[in-house]
Amino acid sequence: MKYDLIIRNGALATAQETFRADIGIRGEQIAAIGMELESSGSCQEIDAADCYVLPGAIDVHVHFQLPVSGTVSADDFESGTRAAARGGVTTIIDFANQDPKKGLMAGIKARMKEAQGKVCIDYSLHAVISKWSEQIKQEMEEAIAFGIPTFKMFMTYGSRGLQSDDAALFSALEATNENKGRIMVHAESDGVMNLLIQRHLKKKKELGAYGHVLSRPNFIEREAVQRAITWAGATGGRLYIAHISTGSAAEIVHHARHRGVNVYAETCPHYLLLDEEAFKDKKQGHLYATCPQIKSKEDQERLWKSLIEGDIALVATDTCTFTKKQKDLWKGDFTKIPYGVPGVETLLPSIYTKGTLSGRFDLNYLVSLVSANPAKIMGLYPRKGTLSIGSDADIVIIDPRKSLRIDYKKMETNCDWSPYQGMEMFGFPDITISRGSVIVKDGKFTGKKGRGRFVKRRPGGEIFNPQSAI
Amino acid sequence: MKYDLIIRNGALATAQETFRADIGIRGEQIAAIGMELESSGSCQEIDAADCYVLPGAIDVHVHFQLPVSGTVSADDFESGTRAAARGGVTTIIDFANQDPKKGLMAGIKARMKEAQGKVCIDYSLHAVISKWSEQIKQEMEEAIAFGIPTFKMFMTYGSRGLQSDDAALFSALEATNENKGRIMVHAESDGVMNLLIQRHLKKKKELGAYGHVLSRPNFIEREAVQRAITWAGATGGRLYIAHISTGSAAEIVHHARHRGVNVYAETCPHYLLLDEEAFKDKKQGHLYATCPQIKSKEDQERLWKSLIEGDIALVATDTCTFTKKQKDLWKGDFTKIPYGVPGVETLLPSIYTKGTLSGRFDLNYLVSLVSANPAKIMGLYPRKGTLSIGSDADIVIIDPRKSLRIDYKKMETNCDWSPYQGMEMFGFPDITISRGSVIVKDGKFTGKKGRGRFVKRRPGGEIFNPQSAI
Amino acid sequence: MKYDLIIRNGALATAQETFRADIGIRGEQIAAIGMELESSGSCQEIDAADCYVLPGAIDVHVHFQLPVSGTVSADDFESGTRAAARGGVTTIIDFANQDPKKGLMAGIKARMKEAQGKVCIDYSLHAVISKWSEQIKQEMEEAIAFGIPTFKMFMTYGSRGLQSDDAALFSALEATNENKGRIMVHAESDGVMNLLIQRHLKKKKELGAYGHVLSRPNFIEREAVQRAITWAGATGGRLYIAHISTGSAAEIVHHARHRGVNVYAETCPHYLLLDEEAFKDKKQGHLYATCPQIKSKEDQERLWKSLIEGDIALVATDTCTFTKKQKDLWKGDFTKIPYGVPGVETLLPSIYTKGTLSGRFDLNYLVSLVSANPAKIMGLYPRKGTLSIGSDADIVIIDPRKSLRIDYKKMETNCDWSPYQGMEMFGFPDITISRGSVIVKDGKFTGKKGRGRFVKRRPGGEIFNPQSAI
Amino acid sequence: MKYDLIIRNGALATAQETFRADIGIRGEQIAAIGMELESSGSCQEIDAADCYVLPGAIDVHVHFQLPVSGTVSADDFESGTRAAARGGVTTIIDFANQDPKKGLMAGIKARMKEAQGKVCIDYSLHAVISKWSEQIKQEMEEAIAFGIPTFKMFMTYGSRGLQSDDAALFSALEATNENKGRIMVHAESDGVMNLLIQRHLKKKKELGAYGHVLSRPNFIEREAVQRAITWAGATGGRLYIAHISTGSAAEIVHHARHRGVNVYAETCPHYLLLDEEAFKDKKQGHLYATCPQIKSKEDQERLWKSLIEGDIALVATDTCTFTKKQKDLWKGDFTKIPYGVPGVETLLPSIYTKGTLSGRFDLNYLVSLVSANPAKIMGLYPRKGTLSIGSDADIVIIDPRKSLRIDYKKMETNCDWSPYQGMEMFGFPDITISRGSVIVKDGKFTGKKGRGRFVKRRPGGEIFNPQSAI
Repeated sequence: MKYDLIIRNGALATAQETFRADIGIRGEQIAAIGMELESSGSCQEIDAADCYVLPGAIDVHVHFQLPVSGTVSADDFESGTRAAARGGVTTIIDFANQDPKKGLMAGIKARMKEAQGKVCIDYSLHAVISKWSEQIKQEMEEAIAFGIPTFKMFMTYGSRGLQSDDAALFSALEATNENKGRIMVHAESDGVMNLLIQRHLKKKKELGAYGHVLSRPNFIEREAVQRAITWAGATGGRLYIAHISTGSAAEIVHHARHRGVNVYAETCPHYLLLDEEAFKDKKQGHLYATCPQIKSKEDQERLWKSLIEGDIALVATDTCTFTKKQKDLWKGDFTKIPYGVPGVETLLPSIYTKGTLSGRFDLNYLVSLVSANPAKIMGLYPRKGTLSIGSDADIVIIDPRKSLRIDYKKMETNCDWSPYQGMEMFGFPDITISRGSVIVKDGKFTGKKGRGRFVKRRPGGEIFNPQSAI
Repeated sequence: MKYDLIIRNGALATAQETFRADIGIRGEQIAAIGMELESSGSCQEIDAADCYVLPGAIDVHVHFQLPVSGTVSADDFESGTRAAARGGVTTIIDFANQDPKKGLMAGIKARMKEAQGKVCIDYSLHAVISKWSEQIKQEMEEAIAFGIPTFKMFMTYGSRGLQSDDAALFSALEATNENKGRIMVHAESDGVMNLLIQRHLKKKKELGAYGHVLSRPNFIEREAVQRAITWAGATGGRLYIAHISTGSAAEIVHHARHRGVNVYAETCPHYLLLDEEAFKDKKQGHLYATCPQIKSKEDQERLWKSLIEGDIALVATDTCTFTKKQKDLWKGDFTKIPYGVPGVETLLPSIYTKGTLSGRFDLNYLVSLVSANPAKIMGLYPRKGTLSIGSDADIVIIDPRKSLRIDYKKMETNCDWSPYQGMEMFGFPDITISRGSVIVKDGKFTGKKGRGRFVKRRPGGEIFNPQSAI
Repeated sequence: MKYDLIIRNGALATAQETFRADIGIRGEQIAAIGMELESSGSCQEIDAADCYVLPGAIDVHVHFQLPVSGTVSADDFESGTRAAARGGVTTIIDFANQDPKKGLMAGIKARMKEAQGKVCIDYSLHAVISKWSEQIKQEMEEAIAFGIPTFKMFMTYGSRGLQSDDAALFSALEATNENKGRIMVHAESDGVMNLLIQRHLKKKKELGAYGHVLSRPNFIEREAVQRAITWAGATGGRLYIAHISTGSAAEIVHHARHRGVNVYAETCPHYLLLDEEAFKDKKQGHLYATCPQIKSKEDQERLWKSLIEGDIALVATDTCTFTKKQKDLWKGDFTKIPYGVPGVETLLPSIYTKGTLSGRFDLNYLVSLVSANPAKIMGLYPRKGTLSIGSDADIVIIDPRKSLRIDYKKMETNCDWSPYQGMEMFGFPDITISRGSVIVKDGKFTGKKGRGRFVKRRPGGEIFNPQSAI
Repeated sequence: MKYDLIIRNGALATAQETFRADIGIRGEQIAAIGMELESSGSCQEIDAADCYVLPGAIDVHVHFQLPVSGTVSADDFESGTRAAARGGVTTIIDFANQDPKKGLMAGIKARMKEAQGKVCIDYSLHAVISKWSEQIKQEMEEAIAFGIPTFKMFMTYGSRGLQSDDAALFSALEATNENKGRIMVHAESDGVMNLLIQRHLKKKKELGAYGHVLSRPNFIEREAVQRAITWAGATGGRLYIAHISTGSAAEIVHHARHRGVNVYAETCPHYLLLDEEAFKDKKQGHLYATCPQIKSKEDQERLWKSLIEGDIALVATDTCTFTKKQKDLWKGDFTKIPYGVPGVETLLPSIYTKGTLSGRFDLNYLVSLVSANPAKIMGLYPRKGTLSIGSDADIVIIDPRKSLRIDYKKMETNCDWSPYQGMEMFGFPDITISRGSVIVKDGKFTGKKGRGRFVKRRPGGEIFNPQSAI
């Protein structure tokens, strides 16, 4: 076998083990892993001695160039995926809205047009179901056949025309029992939340951005998570709870899983690294606003615990970038803040630094949280998410001695501030490889715009999948 | 790189993924995994096309040539490990009794002498602590340094001089909090069990072997498991529950793990494939007697569920073979049956057939249950338990089209009966490789007696080990 | 002290104890309980030797002359309370709808006009809140001051204009945290229920009345109960779950109470004596339709268990009587059945027969379930619900040797069928006394129409009320 | 009816309600409760206007003149019951040791001889089973027939020859399934406790009395309670946990009761009013030593909560008085302290003051905790524990305006110190009446030594007793 690229002598880390070996890449795939792989004439080599070699991270929750709140999120598919690559993410999953008239597939194709020609890494999309009808069942099957087996539904955001009611959520979950898709929910309890928002809105001057916190107490998420899980249990459906921000919601997921409900949960770096005190800053507090909002220090600790115990299966970023100028649209009204924070560029370094280096879990477990589990649940495994023969050569090489102090000015994102400004993070890759091509070198993006491809995903994704016995 | 042996074109399955590749072995280790690995002059090749290639199974619970009940278990280290190899097991862990006078290390060395020269595959030992004293703490550390980090204690068997009381168990668990060893318990509640045995003994003629069942209702195991876990929680100690046979004990383990107790549980194939009806056979019933005894159909189902949910971490066999003649020592008294069943030879095929082929879990999950998890918890990973560069080349090759109808006459074990007689099992290996040497070929053992080695194990074994961050 | 009426030698049974004594009544109250109370010239006497003497039962959930489904429930305040008295119920609580324009108090007064002049026993009303606004808080306080501290809200029945959404329920519960009122909910999950109804409606011919069962699986009640309890916990509000029909809802109440949520639950005789098989009767099945519908035999057993363990605090009847002719309005469409069953006349005998005589609980516990607990929770205790000095002389005298075979033709209700037709029940009173007057004699109603009075109730009702320390 | 004594105009409080009435007593029983009961020539009267009139308290756990630790507890049956009466306790239950040779009944009769002629109030005994044998079953039945249906067993105190092992406890619980007796356990986990005692004993100089605390962490009680409950569940036996001192044990009782185990729990005033800080006092700390020892402030709060929620059914004192001189036998060795504190004299005032007056529960709930529930569970109800016609006239009259500052010098007990010294308590009775005789007047004991009687108790005692349906 001749290789096009050999990564020499790295400490390879998968979700299972760490060992020293060379990786031989031919074309876009990993062709061999072994000691002293033989080189040949045209073969490039990278010396990874003293470095970690990991499968690229997968961020299953990003919103690039998303029109919302009268503006558009600041990172488009180009800057967003450039930032991703620079941070060690080699696949992202964004969202495609249901076309109000033409349905899911039309929305997917429209969104793919926005991505194509811009994406620097591979990508996929979740199909957003904003208006359920019996016909959607058929459309779900088309989407699944097309390679999109995950469907986002919102239990809130009625004002944006996105909200699904219980009947819709129930019906969609019921459909996944058969079609093996999965429903991803934004779980916040709409009615009581709006009541509290209206109540606090009257005091908005006094409260500032902290009103955002006060109007979404923990039970807002807990109730919605509980309800979604009830429907999943009742239908035998397949559920995924996006961006869990509270400890008590994670606890509900634990018990649901134990009694056999098919549900996975995701949390985000901002819930793990930050806490609600941030909103008290009169000048900057509103920048941190996202939904669900960042919770208390106590929740933060329980989320880490839930990650370690497996009740939360993975970390994704919910990246939705707005510049300071965009955030200033709030004009002191916490309900008018464009909600969202940057994150894809720091996903891997932040969890590596605060999770692995701080001793919460080892490097292999990190890989499971940001790479293997996302790939498995989203139907990309083992094409993505591991270092295995025949897998896409999506690889990051990290020098464990190097760290960066976060400075938004030096980031690839278009964002002109960072929630982690000044924080020291290890784990930014020296080199990122996407399908065999080096696209980050010495920590700089060197790839080409538009080189990323849409990747088909399979339905039925699970971390443990008794059904998929070969 | 030149290889000594290449396994071509197999479907490699680890605990994480299944993919097609060659394996290149140099000396005793895996040196490369890849497509079209290059051969060289002296290199042997095995064609594994259309076959599964798995890491060898690890049976962490066997009792070879064990003197007990006035006899000695029928499989010695030779026949036992030959049977193991033939069934796809490439490492076993047996037990070394504490020398009543000279302590743990003396017992370990004596037992190693019995094994050396006989074992056909690699092996390790658990050190049995039958009499606790403050000095044992020191001896535990010696044993750990020697490569034996697991210590067996019995909550029953006072009549054999093996029973540890609560103070001993508490003290030992406390010690593991510091030395990172692990206490493996036989958990049955001694006092009430003996009461019930005495009570039923009076009716032994009428009851036959079923008296064994009646005298050990489920709460006997449940109480002991609960108590051991209480001490583990109180001390921060590290616990391993051997041979869990009831669903309710598995449930207790689940809740303990969720509140942070460091505990793992093992179950055995006979609890998963058989049920207590077996004891009602007047002629053969006593053959099935083992401790804890095989429970009800309902427990069987809950044990499978606990395996799938991860509350039980692995399957081991508790192999302790007695011939019919030996079993006949019972003479109708269920307390005099030499307790134990054969199992190591059918470990992998039985769980593959009833777990994977029956659709309960996939092949990768099978590997985690009989290979990766045992290796991790017992401190052998990644030297054993995976297919990885630098790992020992302990490999089994299975032709998924081939099955055997179990017939004790054709087994390698010395046992002259089988609990699975007549059952059809898939998954017996065509080829078993131990540290690079083919020791089973065409399903026949071809290795050499005594070629196995004692393998050092590390303390601190976990499935997920946040503490062991590199 | 001179008495107007002495009940001699009965076996008095309260929620606490059973003992033999005379009861001396002066005017409308109990003036003495003792041995050989002294008679005087004008004093009447009743010989209760060999009889039980209990406090009158209290049915906190009836719907007399309720306009619904295009008809009006068949028992008006006269026949309904006559039936009540005949069955040993001496106080009922009906409902007053919110006047859409003039509010709660206007609705209450209008409903009182319907009752006045007709009621044969004392009565109170729950105020129905069908449209929440901030102003209702003030109206709740008026109602409480007026003597009505309980407020009914519906989580379903949007089509009848009764449904409260989460924000309304949350707000109302929040108000009870301060005003010490209590929110009584009809808990069924509206959205999914309607989806299932629509789905089954298509097959109505084939399903008949059993379609009613199929469209309301147990999770419909469970989800709504869980949600109401979440809001009660979040607000510190005071909740009462009406007509619990499933075991799993009772389980949720148990856990909520254990973690400190202020919630009580009610169940009804039809859930305890009947099961869903009734709906399969093609001719009569639709008669049994009520909401929530009668569930399975298994639920029935769990409801009895929950009653015994105190997770369900009391039994009330949800009496809503429709004649066969009225029921025939369904014309084969299970959604058009006037929902409701008779019950107030058999409340005490049914629970006495199936609860006490069948050995589930003793006579004192029966009194707590149908008399003392209803009085305490509804703010009537100790004026009603006990045999105590100064309490209203609401008393029933039961001859334990006498039984009746239920025959609707011989009942006081206007209903021309009975769900318990042909069933033998003990415990119909020989004599019922309301505020000192004998209104049932030899099992016949002898009282006067219109003699009943509106009784003021106090807020803050609890079974155990640490807050009300004197 | 003529009365011998009328208590006029008091606010009567039972476990159920509070109301104003007179009580008419004839001979030793309550003959009437009513308004303006008629007096007659020889009738005495007591004016109780502005006072509470309660059923006398029942202390089901006292140890008078108990030989232990080389001394004898300082209050004998005379001073002990005088103190009881003065504090409002009208019945006590002490213990009778099993006669090592002649069995339970011999022990009971011997202990009765010690009590007879001395007791100032009515009393009963629990039979202590210290050595189980099959014959004891027969002896239990004799004791039950004699009026003693409760049997004490110790899970510790092997050194005193009192310890029962699991087989004994299991057998005894099994017997209660049939004979309807109840097993009262002292639940501390012996083996680990002794280990910890030995360990801390080495540092006894440094630790002082606080060593007693350190050697009995909360899990000592928790494990034993869990185990006793497991046996009760397995046998269907009837269990009573004496002197629960930790919150987590109360939590275990809650869950056990919810899954149907027949178990009640008791706690004591010293666990509710004091905390472990007391032991840190170098001079006085050892005085507080009792078993189980007083726990933390946090446990204290959880015990109050468990009382309110009904998981702990009653309060008793475990009175075992030792004078300072006796306590000085410890000589600095915390294992040699005569364990025990005084309590019977302050039972009612302490729980009234800290429970009712501090707003934790109302007066009726107080009566249930110290009078009605003890009477019910111990088989004395309704002869004792309530104000009811035909009940013994055991009555206390309390002036709610009066309080005492505790001073051991002014107590009836022989103890020359008090754990509550200087604490202000309300609720000492002005008058205590025992079977119709005033034995405390103006807070002074005026009764006669030896007037108390042994009272027969019935088996089958429960708070709610479905089985005892009349």
